[in-house]
Amino acid sequence: MWQLTGWSMLKDLAADRHVPGDSRRRNLGALLRRVHLGGPASRVELAEWMGVNRSTVMALTAELAAAGLVREVPPTGSGRAGRPSFVVRPESAAVHVLAFDIAVDRLVAARVGLGGTISARLEATRPRAGADLDSVVSVLADFGRALHHDAPPTSVCVGIGASYCGMIRPGDGMVRFGPDMGWVDQAFGAELARRLDLGLPVLVGNEAHLGAMAEHQRGAGVDAQNVIYLHGDVGVGGGIVVGGDLLDGDGGYGSEVGHMLVNPYQGRPCGCGSRGCLEAEVGERALLDEAGRPADQRGRDAVRAVVADAARGDDAAREALRRIGDWLGIGVANLINLFNPGVVIFGGTLTEVFPGAAAQVRRRIAANVLPVSRDKAQLRVSALGYDATLIGAADLAFTPLLTNPLTPLTPS
Amino acid sequence: MWQLTGWSMLKDLAADRHVPGDSRRRNLGALLRRVHLGGPASRVELAEWMGVNRSTVMALTAELAAAGLVREVPPTGSGRAGRPSFVVRPESAAVHVLAFDIAVDRLVAARVGLGGTISARLEATRPRAGADLDSVVSVLADFGRALHHDAPPTSVCVGIGASYCGMIRPGDGMVRFGPDMGWVDQAFGAELARRLDLGLPVLVGNEAHLGAMAEHQRGAGVDAQNVIYLHGDVGVGGGIVVGGDLLDGDGGYGSEVGHMLVNPYQGRPCGCGSRGCLEAEVGERALLDEAGRPADQRGRDAVRAVVADAARGDDAAREALRRIGDWLGIGVANLINLFNPGVVIFGGTLTEVFPGAAAQVRRRIAANVLPVSRDKAQLRVSALGYDATLIGAADLAFTPLLTNPLTPLTPS
Repeated sequence: MWQLTGWSMLKDLAADRHVPGDSRRRNLGALLRRVHLGGPASRVELAEWMGVNRSTVMALTAELAAAGLVREVPPTGSGRAGRPSFVVRPESAAVHVLAFDIAVDRLVAARVGLGGTISARLEATRPRAGADLDSVVSVLADFGRALHHDAPPTSVCVGIGASYCGMIRPGDGMVRFGPDMGWVDQAFGAELARRLDLGLPVLVGNEAHLGAMAEHQRGAGVDAQNVIYLHGDVGVGGGIVVGGDLLDGDGGYGSEVGHMLVNPYQGRPCGCGSRGCLEAEVGERALLDEAGRPADQRGRDAVRAVVADAARGDDAAREALRRIGDWLGIGVANLINLFNPGVVIFGGTLTEVFPGAAAQVRRRIAANVLPVSRDKAQLRVSALGYDATLIGAADLAFTPLLTNPLTPLTPS
Repeated sequence: MWQLTGWSMLKDLAADRHVPGDSRRRNLGALLRRVHLGGPASRVELAEWMGVNRSTVMALTAELAAAGLVREVPPTGSGRAGRPSFVVRPESAAVHVLAFDIAVDRLVAARVGLGGTISARLEATRPRAGADLDSVVSVLADFGRALHHDAPPTSVCVGIGASYCGMIRPGDGMVRFGPDMGWVDQAFGAELARRLDLGLPVLVGNEAHLGAMAEHQRGAGVDAQNVIYLHGDVGVGGGIVVGGDLLDGDGGYGSEVGHMLVNPYQGRPCGCGSRGCLEAEVGERALLDEAGRPADQRGRDAVRAVVADAARGDDAAREALRRIGDWLGIGVANLINLFNPGVVIFGGTLTEVFPGAAAQVRRRIAANVLPVSRDKAQLRVSALGYDATLIGAADLAFTPLLTNPLTPLTPS
């Protein structure tokens, strides 16, 4: 059940829409979600935010506290008039999820507590090509079991989430297309669940989709309902938030910005088989080639080296960032015209690339975006950095708990 | 109030979301909207659709019938078992709206009854350039007063809507940018309301936004929740439906597909001041130039002539459609990657242009859209034709009634 409804539940929660079930459960979920995503909040703040009175908040908090999910702490003395209000905090050590991030060049696993605290993390670099399902899942399952084994005995694992650098079928975590590993229709979610053997499904999402939701709910996009998140890796992934919801389209494969055709003439070859796609023109290989780096260089460190050289005044590196910035600017301008967003967020390796490319991006926006939309969109780098996708996977894993907080919790 | 909330109410209705107010009013609105948009329906169908029992539908229908908004007619005999169900029809002559369509080369006004029936229409061609606010509003106000005057004495005017070929500020119908008339920040909605003097505000929307909602609610996109509508006129407008809602972005200026940069090298000049925008490469002027037509030719008839020549086998005309089709295909491919839609609809002059350009569009989709999204998207021409924008304006005008059907109706 969780697998089939994970995303849509998360979207319902994100939009504060009606979630099937009784209103008490809904209110408990809303309150827990608020402190999970937004951190500690006073009873007064929670009452205002939920549109209920303080006694309702006290009753809800008492139930969540009895279940060990939140703690109420006395307010610190303030000079403000009136009786200070108790503060409700998520109990980060009471429940946890396992979160996995399958990026192009590394595998990450983490134990994440309520509130989004990463309490333990394991990481491995991985060969770029030829990684088959079995070898990837083996490493992740070993990591997951170790993190689970080391968890405090009182902490309950309530979910498992994974971020994957490819196109994921909503519902069952099937990788429909994972260009960097050459995966087509691999039952990744089911296989990882089987190997972990924790009695829990693995909820899987596309890395840029999860990064977008994490930035929207906790990071650089919390103040906007329309957010564009661009995730740089080998290529460029996209997660687009429209009116607070992830744009996932009819089949769950929306927000695919990387294959926007920006260069119809003599474009660089792309992993998808076409040429001139956004990710071909602004991805890692394009940047390293423009900067004159040898063909065997790659990865985050190589990208960082170009950015560092440009900062030191190296002309080739600066010119490379400028050229990348121009193509990136075309993509961003097109997206701003389409989505009229409040914020555009540059994440993954683009967090590091963007500052040196920003002038060109702004130039394209000035030239190609209509003024009414241009003035609204703020450009920001990721607030969560490389952890955005991992935290997005953790939030996906917390979805069942946040939907129904008082499901009996049994240490597994 | 209507002006401030018109669009969001329509979106709430379209998405069947919670609308503030009591549940009886909501149910009345839902039922009336269903027969307004979908046509006559049996009590059984309505009960199933609304998730209520038949007696609830009977009670709601009785209230709407008492207000003169619907009529119940006995079922025609059918061979099916069980008691046949009464059919609920909208009363097209009881209430009406005035709808206006301000297109690039013509002004249209219509009286539209409940159910979307156009009962009278007036139309004028207009000069392309230099049309100032006063002259446009004068013509429209004359049309509107004539249509109002000729309405049956028992019919009540419940709203006024207008479709405009430019960027509209939601809330007050201000034209922020109307490139074809050279309008910037013109108080079109307020001025038309003042001149009509019917005691009703004029709700204004962008033509492609309104066309998209009309096609989604009544036309070629009724079976999809994610719909891309491309409206050909002098340029190309876009209306994009995401999860049943119009994509309007933070400021109401989303879905702007016309200025997607598709040709970054030596692109054709665009009205926005840039070059190589989608509408510059596939708009009317591009088609006529590619077909070798003289520079003083323009308008729908000139476009139709190229399409007709191509159908007769004229090589220059066929090649023109092929070239336009290639740029159109790039735009459509990019949109399918981004939105993973169920349907892409070609409207306005693109209804006529698309068939001759379809092969190129499909080629670009095959080359540039990832398979997971490619297989889902159906390409269709508009079902409502040139009336899509006018009908969208009428539906916008009906919004207040559909939100609160039992507001006392006084003939105005």
